[in-house]
Amino acid sequence: MTALHTDLYEIRMAASYLRRGMTEPAVFSLFARRLPRHRGFLVAAGLAEALDFLAGFAFDHEELAYLRQVVGLPQSDVDELAGMRFTGEAWAVPEGTVVHADEPLLEITAPLPQAQLIETAMLNFLTFGTTVASKAVRCRLAAGGADLVDFAARRTQGTDAAFTVARLTALAGFSGTSHVASALRYGLRPVGTMAHSYVQAFGDERSAFEAFAEDFPVAPVFLVDTYDTIAGVEQAIEVARRAGLPAERVGIRLDSGDLLELSRRARVLLDEAGLTGARIMASGSLDEYALAELTAAGAPIDSYGVGTKVGVSADAPYLDSAYKLVEYAGRPVMKLSPGKATLPGAKQVYRGADGDVLALRDEEPPPGHRPLLEPVLRAGRRVPGRHTPADARERLEHDLAALPPGARRLREPDRTQVRLSAALTGLAARTRLAHPVRH
Amino acid sequence: MTALHTDLYEIRMAASYLRRGMTEPAVFSLFARRLPRHRGFLVAAGLAEALDFLAGFAFDHEELAYLRQVVGLPQSDVDELAGMRFTGEAWAVPEGTVVHADEPLLEITAPLPQAQLIETAMLNFLTFGTTVASKAVRCRLAAGGADLVDFAARRTQGTDAAFTVARLTALAGFSGTSHVASALRYGLRPVGTMAHSYVQAFGDERSAFEAFAEDFPVAPVFLVDTYDTIAGVEQAIEVARRAGLPAERVGIRLDSGDLLELSRRARVLLDEAGLTGARIMASGSLDEYALAELTAAGAPIDSYGVGTKVGVSADAPYLDSAYKLVEYAGRPVMKLSPGKATLPGAKQVYRGADGDVLALRDEEPPPGHRPLLEPVLRAGRRVPGRHTPADARERLEHDLAALPPGARRLREPDRTQVRLSAALTGLAARTRLAHPVRH
Repeated sequence: MTALHTDLYEIRMAASYLRRGMTEPAVFSLFARRLPRHRGFLVAAGLAEALDFLAGFAFDHEELAYLRQVVGLPQSDVDELAGMRFTGEAWAVPEGTVVHADEPLLEITAPLPQAQLIETAMLNFLTFGTTVASKAVRCRLAAGGADLVDFAARRTQGTDAAFTVARLTALAGFSGTSHVASALRYGLRPVGTMAHSYVQAFGDERSAFEAFAEDFPVAPVFLVDTYDTIAGVEQAIEVARRAGLPAERVGIRLDSGDLLELSRRARVLLDEAGLTGARIMASGSLDEYALAELTAAGAPIDSYGVGTKVGVSADAPYLDSAYKLVEYAGRPVMKLSPGKATLPGAKQVYRGADGDVLALRDEEPPPGHRPLLEPVLRAGRRVPGRHTPADARERLEHDLAALPPGARRLREPDRTQVRLSAALTGLAARTRLAHPVRH
Repeated sequence: MTALHTDLYEIRMAASYLRRGMTEPAVFSLFARRLPRHRGFLVAAGLAEALDFLAGFAFDHEELAYLRQVVGLPQSDVDELAGMRFTGEAWAVPEGTVVHADEPLLEITAPLPQAQLIETAMLNFLTFGTTVASKAVRCRLAAGGADLVDFAARRTQGTDAAFTVARLTALAGFSGTSHVASALRYGLRPVGTMAHSYVQAFGDERSAFEAFAEDFPVAPVFLVDTYDTIAGVEQAIEVARRAGLPAERVGIRLDSGDLLELSRRARVLLDEAGLTGARIMASGSLDEYALAELTAAGAPIDSYGVGTKVGVSADAPYLDSAYKLVEYAGRPVMKLSPGKATLPGAKQVYRGADGDVLALRDEEPPPGHRPLLEPVLRAGRRVPGRHTPADARERLEHDLAALPPGARRLREPDRTQVRLSAALTGLAARTRLAHPVRH
């Protein structure tokens, strides 16, 4: 991924700034304007990919030639872009933090052309990451204590997305992923059972299950719904018995039909066969809504494979995110477009027991409040901090525990209103005065 | 992208097949089971990425070591996988073809382990591609004759997805993309205007517009809604006049508010100023539904920037696609899971004036019908065919013109029922007999 992963207008604006010497520090703020209908909170994520992009920010030769020859930039512009690296500062809410609308996920302070050029990439990484992490956490909350496994790789939007989804479902507390390349890259637990094609290739369940038990005796999970689910469970029991598998090593997977009813019947059959330790896995078009119903009904399901609907965040596949200039050369700025107005100045979010305060970055925190944004890059280089996956997990668990139940509700949750500090309100009023709006 | 872009169960099944010598030819069929609520048809796409994957299919050293050490495959399995390439045959519906539920987009015939291992990747590429192409075509149908430009890069699900979206919006008939890296890779027209930050950095619209007109005099598009849209239009007119820009070189962009009302007022102002040739562009959360309303109301908008909602196909972000074994070693197979039953055998879709017939591949076509699937790989190598972007565009235009109006309706469209040939129906009945289902 190189610097040309941007929109043409960023290139044009950057060129214009460079020609005019407009290279003073600019502060851009990245935030979600409003939350999708069924989101009571977001989980900040995507920062890892964003920082990797900034670390590698540079145009390569082919890209520079393209800007010269096709986009038509003069050589002087191209020369300026050729030497450009990201040398700015970034403050960010670390991954795993619970955030709300209008709270910056990221603030960039850099020479204006740099800060402008990275807009497209920053929005992409943080919007996608936060969208998926938030969706995955909702599944976690809905699944009771059941294990969750990422099954999304086959229906993410492209193959790169499969990696991000695997990484962020792990952040959310999923216990593994089916996507082997992600398991390798991120050190996750690879999880896999069998597909219907396996049963079909053998021609009957008995032969397929016997072969699978022989080849993967450590913990075979038998897919039981290729033909008739209950008959499939009986076959799995029979094969497990004959193979002498201890109950706790045996699993079955349900992938269609009425998962509540089938899991209950399967549990009875397994228990009657003495396989009380055998595990039941379920999959098939699951999301937080389906999980919550199964959990509420007490479905005897030990683990769920959750794929497509988390991978694309099916009920809310994007966020209304924005990356907005809030200060240039020390001058606070704001945008007044209807429904899209922005607040000026570099910001901080202070979180206290009574909620969040959106403040200016250099304000003192209200008593008992802690800042959410922390410096992550200075002069283009990483600032040490708590950014391991374990740190993000711990942060998430802490923040989830502190969320009021109304915000965790899956449908029509309560929204957390973020208060503005007096200083921010005052700055916004003064900045707005400079641009009277006609109506 | 290497062969480890797969799910663990594919690896396990492949290993099991290899150990047992189950390497006879398998036929897998990839299709969408049912269409999302507001889809009357799909546009086949993603084949380019799928064939690239198959061409490069191989496990690298790190992946093989991972399979040995972490996944725990014995060295003998790893040795078999190390030498594996895709040597099979693929039949596919070429990109740009209009297809319906249950019609195969792709059929793979290959030794069973190979055909199994590629499942995850094939589903990913074709599901994503077909989802996005279908969404983009709906925007085309809704936009009347207006120009469409892809603005999605900032909110696709990851950066790789931005390339696919740019490629497939072009297939749908979009006239350009904002994403510069995609424009370079695919030879598309890069399109860019200015952002609000540009206006804000200058501090006022007048200065910003003057600078932009000076720096990009060929065809500057002025973003007019940073503070007050109508005042912005007036500024743009004033700047265009002073700079002596011919009307046909001037553009304005509306990005918020009531686009119908604002475009009408802007058109009047531009016309009154003698800029009848000036163009109006609109953007901001647009999709086919918004475009259809603006088109129906006769909004004087010449071009639209369409981004997020196409990039993630917001109202239908995935397809219920499947990759199912339909034949192994010459034996037709089927799956009987509730709601997910499949039809056996290698297939062909024959299209005639009275609709489509889903048939067995070796059947004679019904009179006046043409086949939709064609061979694209034989022995792992590309079969020459009409696969350029221009071929796909032409195919799409042909197929769209042939669609009945009810299928093109944006909401609750008519569904095309695909008939089954007598031979396919007969084979399904005979195959089903082999697996009586209890209820």
